[in-house]
Amino acid sequence: MNTDGIGIVETQYLTCFEPPNEFKLKSGVKLGPIKIAYETYGKLNAEKTNAILIFHTLTMDAHAAGWHKDAKKPGWWDEMIGPGKAFDTNKFFIVSSNVLGSCKGSTGPASVNPQTGKPYGLSFPAVTFEDMVKCQKVLLDHLQIKKVLCAAGGSMGGTQALKWAVDYPEYVESVIAIATNTRQTAQQIALHEVGRQAIMSDPDWKGGAYYGQSIPARGLALARMLGHITYMSDQSMDEKFGRKLISKEKIGYDFTHDFEVESYLKYRGDSFVQRFDANSYLYLTKAIDYFDLADDKDLASKFKNSKARYLVISFTSDWLYPSYQSKEMVRALKANDLDVSYVEINSSYGHDAFLVEVDDQSKLISHFLNRLAKEKLG
Amino acid sequence: MNTDGIGIVETQYLTCFEPPNEFKLKSGVKLGPIKIAYETYGKLNAEKTNAILIFHTLTMDAHAAGWHKDAKKPGWWDEMIGPGKAFDTNKFFIVSSNVLGSCKGSTGPASVNPQTGKPYGLSFPAVTFEDMVKCQKVLLDHLQIKKVLCAAGGSMGGTQALKWAVDYPEYVESVIAIATNTRQTAQQIALHEVGRQAIMSDPDWKGGAYYGQSIPARGLALARMLGHITYMSDQSMDEKFGRKLISKEKIGYDFTHDFEVESYLKYRGDSFVQRFDANSYLYLTKAIDYFDLADDKDLASKFKNSKARYLVISFTSDWLYPSYQSKEMVRALKANDLDVSYVEINSSYGHDAFLVEVDDQSKLISHFLNRLAKEKLG
Repeated sequence: MNTDGIGIVETQYLTCFEPPNEFKLKSGVKLGPIKIAYETYGKLNAEKTNAILIFHTLTMDAHAAGWHKDAKKPGWWDEMIGPGKAFDTNKFFIVSSNVLGSCKGSTGPASVNPQTGKPYGLSFPAVTFEDMVKCQKVLLDHLQIKKVLCAAGGSMGGTQALKWAVDYPEYVESVIAIATNTRQTAQQIALHEVGRQAIMSDPDWKGGAYYGQSIPARGLALARMLGHITYMSDQSMDEKFGRKLISKEKIGYDFTHDFEVESYLKYRGDSFVQRFDANSYLYLTKAIDYFDLADDKDLASKFKNSKARYLVISFTSDWLYPSYQSKEMVRALKANDLDVSYVEINSSYGHDAFLVEVDDQSKLISHFLNRLAKEKLG
Repeated sequence: MNTDGIGIVETQYLTCFEPPNEFKLKSGVKLGPIKIAYETYGKLNAEKTNAILIFHTLTMDAHAAGWHKDAKKPGWWDEMIGPGKAFDTNKFFIVSSNVLGSCKGSTGPASVNPQTGKPYGLSFPAVTFEDMVKCQKVLLDHLQIKKVLCAAGGSMGGTQALKWAVDYPEYVESVIAIATNTRQTAQQIALHEVGRQAIMSDPDWKGGAYYGQSIPARGLALARMLGHITYMSDQSMDEKFGRKLISKEKIGYDFTHDFEVESYLKYRGDSFVQRFDANSYLYLTKAIDYFDLADDKDLASKFKNSKARYLVISFTSDWLYPSYQSKEMVRALKANDLDVSYVEINSSYGHDAFLVEVDDQSKLISHFLNRLAKEKLG
């Protein structure tokens, strides 16, 4: 265990919308009770003004930093969150929660429907970014936080940060949106759809009712394999694998894994199956694909009530969330005379750069947050 | 039927390597008899010096131009091959054959093994580009052609054209290599591998022994869906589909096809299954991935015996066979003081541009071939 970080942390749970209360989803469907898994790092100040919301990506969870007891690795953004780090827990109170619809502690399709005593499966209602953000607001209300200093995230997490700024403009002092977008392109939807079809084509998927039986492991692994390709770049794959063969002694060609890149993807696909629920993959990718921050209208008009300060970061080799999508949001923000810093970081790591390029991002984020803290926290 | 083209054509078949003859594959395995499906357009001149070899892509066939009787569409490159077209059948004798390992008339894994009376399936030996090219050479010997004026193709077809120039340097007067490469990158291999794993994960695949039973339709359709994404570009998908929904009346979200791009991909995947054999998809993608024209050595050294003239074409938005791969081959050719023209065509169509950008390519190819014809044919 690395001792210069946060140390041991535990996931906490908030159960809300217990009967007779219900949560009304964007679709109109009602859901309850809802459990929200979350973690916090650092200390909330007396004025409750130093809170920062961190949002995770598609397959991540509330465990953003520190170590779970007996864990082999820390939270997914541990390099960025901790004492003296970009999100400095000596100064800030970090709140990270698992999104509605996921399978990492918060209520989702794998959760037991209290009305039937069985997992929801596909009877779980469709969830949207609006619903996810509303649940996070309930959590902050529970923590008695009246305003967040920053809403920050990468990829799908960055989209949530932007959604916060639009849905709760009085509530958000600043936004850090990394390698993200405000709506999916046809290519992004198409890549997700291949993953969804892979899951739904797996006979073990059984219309989503596979709990307690064989899981649709082959389909989910395929979805993850493709996901991994989109998270890397042509260059980073070339540098990591090139055309290296697993065994140089191998003569002839068969359909096992010959190239290192093949066995890597298979390994990543197979291990993903152990840690993520196939139905959650369907629900969350659909939520991403459906989301349009502009609601088919002018994006700039959505930020008209925002007074937040923005830091937008993208990466040169990220072809899944290409820089032009960040530039679109920067234009919409600037159209509202908002204070926006935009940096395109030169990186060969593709979309993964957001998790890999720690130094460059740390400098940008520390500077952005420290300036803000000086003004807002004194 | 379009009457300003070649008109009705028929696929012909050459059966070779009949017992006791056998074809020795690169792997050392012997195969025979071998059937080669081919078509020819135009007339071979008395000196037999006006032949042009055309090579198809991964899933195409010998039917490059003209119309099969009662067909609803012409050959796959009909816009480029015909009287007065880029490959002008008034001047040239075009030969197009289906590659070894395919399922479109030439011998492949779906063919009946004469020794067992059953389809080969995975007992079909691995085939390489070297083997494909050797079979094409057998066909040209049969047609009594001693030299080809040009070897031309796009994508996997372009790689074959380059392989011809390297394996039969005395035999090839010129090469047209479009949107192609001399070896696959890790990303290209990875994208193929997802398709292969999709096929092999389909329970109907049954280790390749599915003939006469249910075919691995779901897996093959998935492979094709992904393929289609890689053949298009971010921009062309955006222009064609954007975020258009199938039905605007649709309320809520389910896991049927909501976006037009989703139903398009599903349609293309499902129709592909009707026309292509899953095992051939495995064999041919593996042949592409294994192929390295440089054999892990210096690429330039491979062209040292070539005296051919080269036209290399790539497309700005082609991310499957990006332009830098064409530039690599151009550098290797130039290092041998060869006569090389390289053009990067500005196109938003991605890899498909090679089939779509007819006007730009026609001008380049006509000019290239006419200059050659003037010198070589008088």
